[in-house]
Amino acid sequence: MTVSYTLDISRSNTKSVIKLLFRWRGSIWKAVWLQLLAWCIAYFSISIVYRFALSNDMQKSFDTLATYFETYLEKAIPLSFMLGFFVNFVINRWKEFFHGLGWIDDFALAIATYLRGSTEQTRVLRRTLIRYLVLTQTLVLRDISLQVRKRFPALETLIAAGLLTQDELERLEKIPDVYTRYWIPCHWISELLYEAREYGHISSDYLLEKISDESNKFRHGLAELLKFDWVPVPLVYPQVIFLTVRIFFALCLISRQFLRNDDHDIYVPVMTIFQFIVFMGWVKVAEALLNPLGEDDDDLECNYVIDKNLICGMAIVDQGGQPTPKLGKDIFWD
Amino acid sequence: MTVSYTLDISRSNTKSVIKLLFRWRGSIWKAVWLQLLAWCIAYFSISIVYRFALSNDMQKSFDTLATYFETYLEKAIPLSFMLGFFVNFVINRWKEFFHGLGWIDDFALAIATYLRGSTEQTRVLRRTLIRYLVLTQTLVLRDISLQVRKRFPALETLIAAGLLTQDELERLEKIPDVYTRYWIPCHWISELLYEAREYGHISSDYLLEKISDESNKFRHGLAELLKFDWVPVPLVYPQVIFLTVRIFFALCLISRQFLRNDDHDIYVPVMTIFQFIVFMGWVKVAEALLNPLGEDDDDLECNYVIDKNLICGMAIVDQGGQPTPKLGKDIFWD
Amino acid sequence: MTVSYTLDISRSNTKSVIKLLFRWRGSIWKAVWLQLLAWCIAYFSISIVYRFALSNDMQKSFDTLATYFETYLEKAIPLSFMLGFFVNFVINRWKEFFHGLGWIDDFALAIATYLRGSTEQTRVLRRTLIRYLVLTQTLVLRDISLQVRKRFPALETLIAAGLLTQDELERLEKIPDVYTRYWIPCHWISELLYEAREYGHISSDYLLEKISDESNKFRHGLAELLKFDWVPVPLVYPQVIFLTVRIFFALCLISRQFLRNDDHDIYVPVMTIFQFIVFMGWVKVAEALLNPLGEDDDDLECNYVIDKNLICGMAIVDQGGQPTPKLGKDIFWD
Amino acid sequence: MTVSYTLDISRSNTKSVIKLLFRWRGSIWKAVWLQLLAWCIAYFSISIVYRFALSNDMQKSFDTLATYFETYLEKAIPLSFMLGFFVNFVINRWKEFFHGLGWIDDFALAIATYLRGSTEQTRVLRRTLIRYLVLTQTLVLRDISLQVRKRFPALETLIAAGLLTQDELERLEKIPDVYTRYWIPCHWISELLYEAREYGHISSDYLLEKISDESNKFRHGLAELLKFDWVPVPLVYPQVIFLTVRIFFALCLISRQFLRNDDHDIYVPVMTIFQFIVFMGWVKVAEALLNPLGEDDDDLECNYVIDKNLICGMAIVDQGGQPTPKLGKDIFWD
Amino acid sequence: MTVSYTLDISRSNTKSVIKLLFRWRGSIWKAVWLQLLAWCIAYFSISIVYRFALSNDMQKSFDTLATYFETYLEKAIPLSFMLGFFVNFVINRWKEFFHGLGWIDDFALAIATYLRGSTEQTRVLRRTLIRYLVLTQTLVLRDISLQVRKRFPALETLIAAGLLTQDELERLEKIPDVYTRYWIPCHWISELLYEAREYGHISSDYLLEKISDESNKFRHGLAELLKFDWVPVPLVYPQVIFLTVRIFFALCLISRQFLRNDDHDIYVPVMTIFQFIVFMGWVKVAEALLNPLGEDDDDLECNYVIDKNLICGMAIVDQGGQPTPKLGKDIFWD
Repeated sequence: MTVSYTLDISRSNTKSVIKLLFRWRGSIWKAVWLQLLAWCIAYFSISIVYRFALSNDMQKSFDTLATYFETYLEKAIPLSFMLGFFVNFVINRWKEFFHGLGWIDDFALAIATYLRGSTEQTRVLRRTLIRYLVLTQTLVLRDISLQVRKRFPALETLIAAGLLTQDELERLEKIPDVYTRYWIPCHWISELLYEAREYGHISSDYLLEKISDESNKFRHGLAELLKFDWVPVPLVYPQVIFLTVRIFFALCLISRQFLRNDDHDIYVPVMTIFQFIVFMGWVKVAEALLNPLGEDDDDLECNYVIDKNLICGMAIVDQGGQPTPKLGKDIFWD
Repeated sequence: MTVSYTLDISRSNTKSVIKLLFRWRGSIWKAVWLQLLAWCIAYFSISIVYRFALSNDMQKSFDTLATYFETYLEKAIPLSFMLGFFVNFVINRWKEFFHGLGWIDDFALAIATYLRGSTEQTRVLRRTLIRYLVLTQTLVLRDISLQVRKRFPALETLIAAGLLTQDELERLEKIPDVYTRYWIPCHWISELLYEAREYGHISSDYLLEKISDESNKFRHGLAELLKFDWVPVPLVYPQVIFLTVRIFFALCLISRQFLRNDDHDIYVPVMTIFQFIVFMGWVKVAEALLNPLGEDDDDLECNYVIDKNLICGMAIVDQGGQPTPKLGKDIFWD
Repeated sequence: MTVSYTLDISRSNTKSVIKLLFRWRGSIWKAVWLQLLAWCIAYFSISIVYRFALSNDMQKSFDTLATYFETYLEKAIPLSFMLGFFVNFVINRWKEFFHGLGWIDDFALAIATYLRGSTEQTRVLRRTLIRYLVLTQTLVLRDISLQVRKRFPALETLIAAGLLTQDELERLEKIPDVYTRYWIPCHWISELLYEAREYGHISSDYLLEKISDESNKFRHGLAELLKFDWVPVPLVYPQVIFLTVRIFFALCLISRQFLRNDDHDIYVPVMTIFQFIVFMGWVKVAEALLNPLGEDDDDLECNYVIDKNLICGMAIVDQGGQPTPKLGKDIFWD
Repeated sequence: MTVSYTLDISRSNTKSVIKLLFRWRGSIWKAVWLQLLAWCIAYFSISIVYRFALSNDMQKSFDTLATYFETYLEKAIPLSFMLGFFVNFVINRWKEFFHGLGWIDDFALAIATYLRGSTEQTRVLRRTLIRYLVLTQTLVLRDISLQVRKRFPALETLIAAGLLTQDELERLEKIPDVYTRYWIPCHWISELLYEAREYGHISSDYLLEKISDESNKFRHGLAELLKFDWVPVPLVYPQVIFLTVRIFFALCLISRQFLRNDDHDIYVPVMTIFQFIVFMGWVKVAEALLNPLGEDDDDLECNYVIDKNLICGMAIVDQGGQPTPKLGKDIFWD
Repeated sequence: MTVSYTLDISRSNTKSVIKLLFRWRGSIWKAVWLQLLAWCIAYFSISIVYRFALSNDMQKSFDTLATYFETYLEKAIPLSFMLGFFVNFVINRWKEFFHGLGWIDDFALAIATYLRGSTEQTRVLRRTLIRYLVLTQTLVLRDISLQVRKRFPALETLIAAGLLTQDELERLEKIPDVYTRYWIPCHWISELLYEAREYGHISSDYLLEKISDESNKFRHGLAELLKFDWVPVPLVYPQVIFLTVRIFFALCLISRQFLRNDDHDIYVPVMTIFQFIVFMGWVKVAEALLNPLGEDDDDLECNYVIDKNLICGMAIVDQGGQPTPKLGKDIFWD
């Protein structure tokens, strides 16, 4: 589920910043604590071994190694640079994902007005169009979002959910190509609209096409999601980034030990722990957003979107055929 | 309220830069002074304790700690890098927000011309369409902007403001789903336009659709705002940034103390204070813009936009049905 | 006035680079010389005081201060980072401004062809449409560009310039809301086009709407400019940047003095002067572009755009109703 | 073939990061191992020569050289900066490429509905339109993708693949200009649609134009690809980047040797090896994406796209003329 | 002429990288060698003077100066930062330029189908329309591209090239305003299309407008180019960048000399030479792309575009009026 905190920051003052910093769900703390714990255990284990178990000579070798690592650590690995560019890239991709998810309002408003008629038959038609569009969305999201897949493991479960009828299921299953199958309900929408035009429920080709445009826009968003799924960010890119961060902190386990002849031995590597929180938090932004349809706290809730589209779409089209409020002069009338 | 300073900078010379730097409202000074004061008090308290209250040994330990912090401060925490990318990201998001707010001119100009008729009835119709669009905007902004919520705490207050009638309120309240409710006035607009087309006030389907397009564009902007509200920037991202800045300056309290054996003890940490102003000002840009509909000096004034749309929309549609100026040869006529 | 130098760089060789570097109008030299002079005077005054007027002890204190400043100068103030991101942001905004200014070609070409008729009456109509669109542009630019405001200090001056008639002025003045007033000429355009359609000068609703689209696009650009003017870049952002640069070079006045025990005293701080030119030039890019409608050398010439639109628009619409060249086989005909 | 790993990262936890890091196909390991091996061999050869073969004086010269290189290595060559910007640029270009490839769904759905008729003749027509669009795609991709060129070395091979008939081939070969030839099948599509409109298979000009729009969008994508091919990134840019990385690591062969009087000689240059992996992996992202239609693991599979378009397009248009599912009340009906 | 190297990089392996690095046309080597030579001569001259001609005292002064320069060189001048942002900016601008150039395919395909008729008269009409659009392009490019200006120094030369007739030339010359003149052939196109519509060669206003849209899109691209030419990047920006690079390497002439008491005197400043190649190559990217219509190796070939548009446009419209291939079942027919 996405984590909302907009109200916390309606004023940017110290209080709201503090409230923001100490949230738990979807937070840096939740994302980092386990790894930080593991890192600390490793660090202190090495520290104890170094201080108490190693012979003088071995300590000396350790010193050599640690000094060598520390010398090159910052200059060899441009951590902040890589993260800056990568997070920038991933967050833009996440925004595109978000826009691809699809909201049914436009389509519903278009058919509520332009598909005329107050009969039960036209109401059935309007509701069916909404159902088909949500069905397309569900078919697509099942294949790219684990959340939706878990909710609808088989096509049959869509019947129980009221998104599909037995008859429609059979027709879908006749289509061998999975990718084609996604768009069959969209084809039904086109056909139903075309017939409605022929029966005069839609008064012109122009308005027919305006409704079709809305369903097409919805469908394009879903097609974008499929493309994102088919061709993800080239593997090397996230690998380089994630690897770099891990190597960096693995090396810190040795390079940031307080050596015998260090003049500032304070036992606890406070700065490196801070650094760990900052960088692991930063990389976490990238990891969580790389697959926005996953199951992280901040991932997009596809099931919620499906339900919302169904409820909202049905509610809007049921307004169709009802009279508008009576017109009257407004209070600013001169 | 937004802070305008465009006139100050019509020439980029030293004078205009100075005028720009010493404004107060929405300024870096206003944003930073309190935190800077708190930081300075903390700094000098520690300074006094260090200089006068600590024993020699404790001073030594303090020196160790401060040196350790200072050593890693710059290299461990890539403050400027993170801020650069984050502010860049937030300011782009703010621009999108701004474009979503919606200005009624296009819609008003379209109905002023294409919805023909000089009768009182058509005037009522035109004014009602404007009212409905502003109503939609107000319904949406009430739920995402604290300013608007404070002005219209309950739906009933919209009646007093002339945006809603009792009849319409009852209809709205019949819709259970809040999200659907936003768009009901848009549906009324569509219906009214469709009826106007049937009565011949609009001369063709094509022009009908052009008017609808304008109200749809307006509505899309509002839908974008709702999406921004529903899925904010993933929490980890601002947390990492805001935390990093605070940790940085907390550490500076110790690391930037003038130590006993420092060769440049000047008592007042001028450079760190400058650094504080610069970085806290920079992060302030991000904090203020992260929720552009909040109550900061630089946040967008939603109530002003609502009023402006109502006034401007009514004024434009009231031009409808009035004759244009008499045509004549212009002075460049050869 | 904008500064054109495209021809200088049609080949990227040393000669063209040198020609580019030594231009004066709109150049870094013109932008920087005065401030550099002031800075140098300050620097050498301090230098002289330090070398000849200070006692030994005071020199020592000065040394301490200068060393302290120098130590933190680079690491405390991430000048290049902030400038990089800010200039990037400002230059993108400047490009959007530029696109909002509006060129009349599209509108003029559309009415030249689709608004048929060779009578004087249709010619008057076409020319009036052009005049109204330029009038809208002038009304808007008067309120956001100092250049245009100076040329047209009062609405009456527009009559002398041939952009407005007495009758039209009176109608405009009846509109109380300034923002609404901008768009009244656009409303007249719509009305005139609608009437031309009714009289058959335009042969279909579709073509009518195509012409309207062009005037709408023009108007949108102007509305964008008004929005840019109403909500500028949040004040904190430019303040942070401009302040940082000034603080930086103020500190340099002390930190970059050649101290007594410096081993490379060369009297003239060549490097800091270079640095001054580079950074002040860079920040100048941002200062000049922050208000693109101001009066800097590189600002957009609004008055030129208004004149050009009037001349070019009139010339194009006067082609309307004239016969096209006689058709014939081209020389590639086989 | 593109490498999909989306499922691995549906949760961003340590396990999924590890799974991500240790993939082979399209991975950093596969990309880097050979070059790393070569580099290591060179490094250790030099190391052995330095340690055992050089005289004392020559060692001294070597030390001088290594120290000199090391001193300037980091500051002279801004590797991470250049890579950050370049990878950013290349990955955006890759995204545009990807969008240009073209998916046939929109076109197929449009003709399935708007090109009416259940006769065999109309089915032939619909299938032919699909075939022509895929043919255009194939003609274009043959000239810019090695993969497709290998599959269809001569135009004749397209006949065997069922994309072309002998008659069509002869007509294509009559067109001398290669660039024009690409678009001839698009012209046939336009003509066939126009005739279908005349015969009444398409019910209005408006719907005719909607279908044409879809084929135009498809064609524009391909035209973009041709432009990308014709004008690649200016050669200097990738040269600078690739050269810089190679020079950097060539210099490291000397500068990162453990010198005699080094206090941390650990024989294996662990840090430089890590650095090699990180930077070579990063530059690999750029190298692989610079020509997205090449034959790397992560390149776009053009042949797959062609097949998919043919299968999916045919399947969708064959739905044309078939009845839609029977309408009925949905389970949410109140 | 643009330099194509796409085939070289269809696989990203060492071989293709090497092939890429050692190209000459449009390469970094060609761009840099002359300046590098000049720099080296200057460097070694100074070196020889320093080593052999200077007295001991003067050497000392030189040492002071060099040390001073070197100390501030890296920190005072953020070369890589400025270049990173500037190249990023310039390359985006170059892409927009490229999109403005205009390809005639869309327009040609539209008139080939929608402008019906197989008579010679309609063929003349179609070909004339193509000619007029290419004429507009040529008129515009003559004024912003030196290449095209050289090919067509006077308007008369366009007659010889078959782009213009004597009659048309006279009409063009009657238009005093140069900017208006560019668009006159576009006006003729509109008129001819309008007449073709009246004579029934185009079957509906809708299709008429679709053709007009294509010529408008083409024209908009050209108008963009004119705007780019009129308002270039504000002069200060490239000046700052180009100046910084030159100052940097001028200072290096002194600061990178091997001083007497240097411990790594290797006579040849290998690292600075590498740095020179890298940075001058990088800045070359910016210099070459700043004016994309210039005469550098990588500049866009406007003359080629004009020829290609004429050939391709004529070839496509000549397909108009010819029958399409006979329809038949495809090989996948079940």
